Amino acid sequence: MTRENVFDCNCPIARVTEVLGEPWTLMVLREAFLGTRCFNDFERELGIARNILSARLRKLVEAGLLERRQSEIDRRSFEYRLTESGRSLAPALVALAQWAGDCLCDGSTPTRFIERATGREIPALAVRSVDGRILDADDIAMVPGPDADDVLKARYERVLSEAKGL
Amino acid sequence: MTRENVFDCNCPIARVTEVLGEPWTLMVLREAFLGTRCFNDFERELGIARNILSARLRKLVEAGLLERRQSEIDRRSFEYRLTESGRSLAPALVALAQWAGDCLCDGSTPTRFIERATGREIPALAVRSVDGRILDADDIAMVPGPDADDVLKARYERVLSEAKGL
Repeated sequence: MTRENVFDCNCPIARVTEVLGEPWTLMVLREAFLGTRCFNDFERELGIARNILSARLRKLVEAGLLERRQSEIDRRSFEYRLTESGRSLAPALVALAQWAGDCLCDGSTPTRFIERATGREIPALAVRSVDGRILDADDIAMVPGPDADDVLKARYERVLSEAKGL
Repeated sequence: MTRENVFDCNCPIARVTEVLGEPWTLMVLREAFLGTRCFNDFERELGIARNILSARLRKLVEAGLLERRQSEIDRRSFEYRLTESGRSLAPALVALAQWAGDCLCDGSTPTRFIERATGREIPALAVRSVDGRILDADDIAMVPGPDADDVLKARYERVLSEAKGL
């Protein structure tokens, strides 16, 4: 199997890798969620090279996470705003940041997520069953959906035949 | 601000970028969650170059997501298993895959997550308040925690003073 094969299947994790799995992309999205809109502000806040920032913003626009539109303040410049698709990444970003806070920050608490209206801390996101029970990794299976392509179906068939579990 | 500055702060999203934000890393983790353990199996399933696979596995071991141990089947070889820290990434991975299924797969459903015990579909992960209400991106604020370093504190102070909102 070549790289083309595995990324050519319609696995959503492969799609995530293509869209978010480059250096800087998550930091650009962090800035967008913090309210940064203008190219120069992204550049200043991140200390990122302009050509890299430009490529990352373009890719996020193409993937539908950001919308590029004329600035209301300076009509010669453009701003980038999260689209509905970009904003719906919030659960994944919060889950990633909470996980990193717990597992990669040596027990320290660099950031917290709070509900704006109440100021109360947002609890750790959990995978829940349809009736609300918290599930852990062992309780969950990834299975092909109705639109899985042949590469993905074949992969899941091997998983089932091996049934290694975690 | 140079690249060193922004990645040198203890922002959890910067940590995530360092550990997961390289091509292939999420796909290697997908395989680990599907039960792949042996180097050769990772290589075959992903069609990844051995030197890149080796570097990604080493990094995931160093970051504490995978544990490398002698194979029980062939004592000359090693296997890689998810640690508790690796397994606790499940909510973030499920959230990312659900988001990609909704937003990057053109309305198709390539994969589903189900509860093993019941076979029932796992609902979309949501950010919830402490009393269980579903929150969207506008309702959430990222604020410095007690251990935020100076770079991170300064960033959040600028956010507050600008108060652009989404």
